[in-house]
Amino acid sequence: MTSDLLALSTPSTADSGCPGAGRLRERVDSALAAFLAGKCGSAPDPCLPPLVAVLREFLEGGKRVRPLFCHFGWLAGGGDPDAEQPAVLGAALELFHTFALVHDDIMDASGLRRGRPTVHRALAAGFRGPGGRQAAERFGTSAAILLGDLALVWSEELLSVLDADSGRKRAVRELVATMHVELIAGQYLDLLGAAESGVDPLRRAWRVIRFKTARYTVELPLRIGAVLAGADARVLTACGAYGRPVGEAFQLRDDLLGVFGDPAVTGKPDLDDLREGKQTVLMVLTWRRATKAQREIITALHGKPDLDQQEADRLREVVRDTGAVARVEKLIADRAQRALSVLNSPAFAAQAKQGLTELAVSATSRTR
Amino acid sequence: MTSDLLALSTPSTADSGCPGAGRLRERVDSALAAFLAGKCGSAPDPCLPPLVAVLREFLEGGKRVRPLFCHFGWLAGGGDPDAEQPAVLGAALELFHTFALVHDDIMDASGLRRGRPTVHRALAAGFRGPGGRQAAERFGTSAAILLGDLALVWSEELLSVLDADSGRKRAVRELVATMHVELIAGQYLDLLGAAESGVDPLRRAWRVIRFKTARYTVELPLRIGAVLAGADARVLTACGAYGRPVGEAFQLRDDLLGVFGDPAVTGKPDLDDLREGKQTVLMVLTWRRATKAQREIITALHGKPDLDQQEADRLREVVRDTGAVARVEKLIADRAQRALSVLNSPAFAAQAKQGLTELAVSATSRTR
Repeated sequence: MTSDLLALSTPSTADSGCPGAGRLRERVDSALAAFLAGKCGSAPDPCLPPLVAVLREFLEGGKRVRPLFCHFGWLAGGGDPDAEQPAVLGAALELFHTFALVHDDIMDASGLRRGRPTVHRALAAGFRGPGGRQAAERFGTSAAILLGDLALVWSEELLSVLDADSGRKRAVRELVATMHVELIAGQYLDLLGAAESGVDPLRRAWRVIRFKTARYTVELPLRIGAVLAGADARVLTACGAYGRPVGEAFQLRDDLLGVFGDPAVTGKPDLDDLREGKQTVLMVLTWRRATKAQREIITALHGKPDLDQQEADRLREVVRDTGAVARVEKLIADRAQRALSVLNSPAFAAQAKQGLTELAVSATSRTR
Repeated sequence: MTSDLLALSTPSTADSGCPGAGRLRERVDSALAAFLAGKCGSAPDPCLPPLVAVLREFLEGGKRVRPLFCHFGWLAGGGDPDAEQPAVLGAALELFHTFALVHDDIMDASGLRRGRPTVHRALAAGFRGPGGRQAAERFGTSAAILLGDLALVWSEELLSVLDADSGRKRAVRELVATMHVELIAGQYLDLLGAAESGVDPLRRAWRVIRFKTARYTVELPLRIGAVLAGADARVLTACGAYGRPVGEAFQLRDDLLGVFGDPAVTGKPDLDDLREGKQTVLMVLTWRRATKAQREIITALHGKPDLDQQEADRLREVVRDTGAVARVEKLIADRAQRALSVLNSPAFAAQAKQGLTELAVSATSRTR
């Protein structure tokens, strides 16, 4: 369920002339390519390179959102736009994100990601052993667990070879450790869902947003980049004040796209969130505002595993009619506003401001 | 399928008076307890401590085999028997091993480990949400993937706080990175099994042994402990010459126990390996030596998902009758002999020899 945030490094930011942003993807990609080529070259067994090829292919589809925020954190902290370290750090974050997405897709039994079969599905499709479809599915899931594990241990390895003085490296490590545990906690919260008794559903939905997107996708990558540049406490505080609302708005937009988005644009099926009965802020607000008749529709359709398009449309109508969509749009606009006002703070180095402004806008108004 | 190696830190080694070995488990356990208590105290969300409790309970059942070899590597390299670093390093290895076992048990759909329900089963049993058994099983698997992920990132975190000079720390990290990728490769090989075409089954079985046990359980923990102590190349070579045969013998014994062991003693069901049709060295040798009539029995029963005790007994009889058991016993004895002869090498510090001798003997003659 972790967001893919496809739209953030579209040409509007990549080619906007923000210092270093245009070359960032290229640099992160070469760091990843060099690292993975080295791993294939030194593979302890010939079974490994084909698995790495699947990992590499999956990586190609990513948009480097966390590396981008990390890069702007580096710039915000006064880092040299031409330095190599933020790209290596960005590559580590992207590998970690691959781990998170691949394991998430297994847990959610998702079939599609970035417009293509998810890793466990692709690996199942490539299975040549005996045992039919069931054996293939089991193989796909198991091999995808391993591919995620591999991405995670390699992300750690990239971090450990990061070229920085020991104080900055320790600070990066501490934030990365926080990011790891928060993401896992967010995913666990998501799994617990309704099984966690006595918890207000709206509060739970906000906790999931906080850990799985706001901190993970925006605030922490920003801060991680900033501490690598040796930023002071004032910059780190500003990173939080900017990053949290952008991250929240990002996920709120994602929740809307999960229900109303065009799968041809998002690359994700438009029924998954509804079939799964995902308790997003949008859906909790819908429930709260619904009439008795509307609640009956929600109860019957939200979380129905074989929901069809017609039923989905009825449910979407209820979501709109309750005013929940308008409410969520307002929550997004407020957060975009708050983030943009933080950018006036003198804490951020000037070289970061244009890029962060564009990222705040694209994160909150994207269509994919 | 990774071996649990239950028997290695029985009183025979733990109370044998080997320098530091008696206190090792205690030290590793306090390092783990302190680390996990800190993690619970600083948990970003109240959902986390109950998951950590499951992790802690699982850890209690472990026998600290890798920490033990790591400790003796440290001693072999001339390390101070009273130092704390090998215990912290041992705790990191034990957390990594927890990750490996928990994910392995999901891939193998194992129900029992260390005489208790596996983590995914235990988590499924604790599920209180709606959706019946299927939802509970899905929750158990997903939560266990996360618990494994948590153990892995925390293992990395323990490594990163290891108190050692940067050269030794880098050497430890390099070996740990090798261990990670080899274990994952070994598990992937195991998954591929018969689906990997054109590979000699005996060679494949030996490759799995090499990565999943020999290197992972014995040789690399030994070398990791040794490099932490600053051991020279001569010691590291001796660690390999001792560790590889002990590790191989260990897994060969494990394969025998998987077919002939008493589940009341091993803590693992005695039909799993046979039902799974695991292509161990034992079973490949059995096939090679079998007559046509015996091969018919193997084809019918090995890998039969609902194999019963009577059928298992027929299969066991075939394994014995072909002489494969005697052959594997001989392979084990040869390896034990080879390992013991290496211990006469002057490369090892005297303080490590008694413990390594006992470990070689118990690893090859254990019953659980």
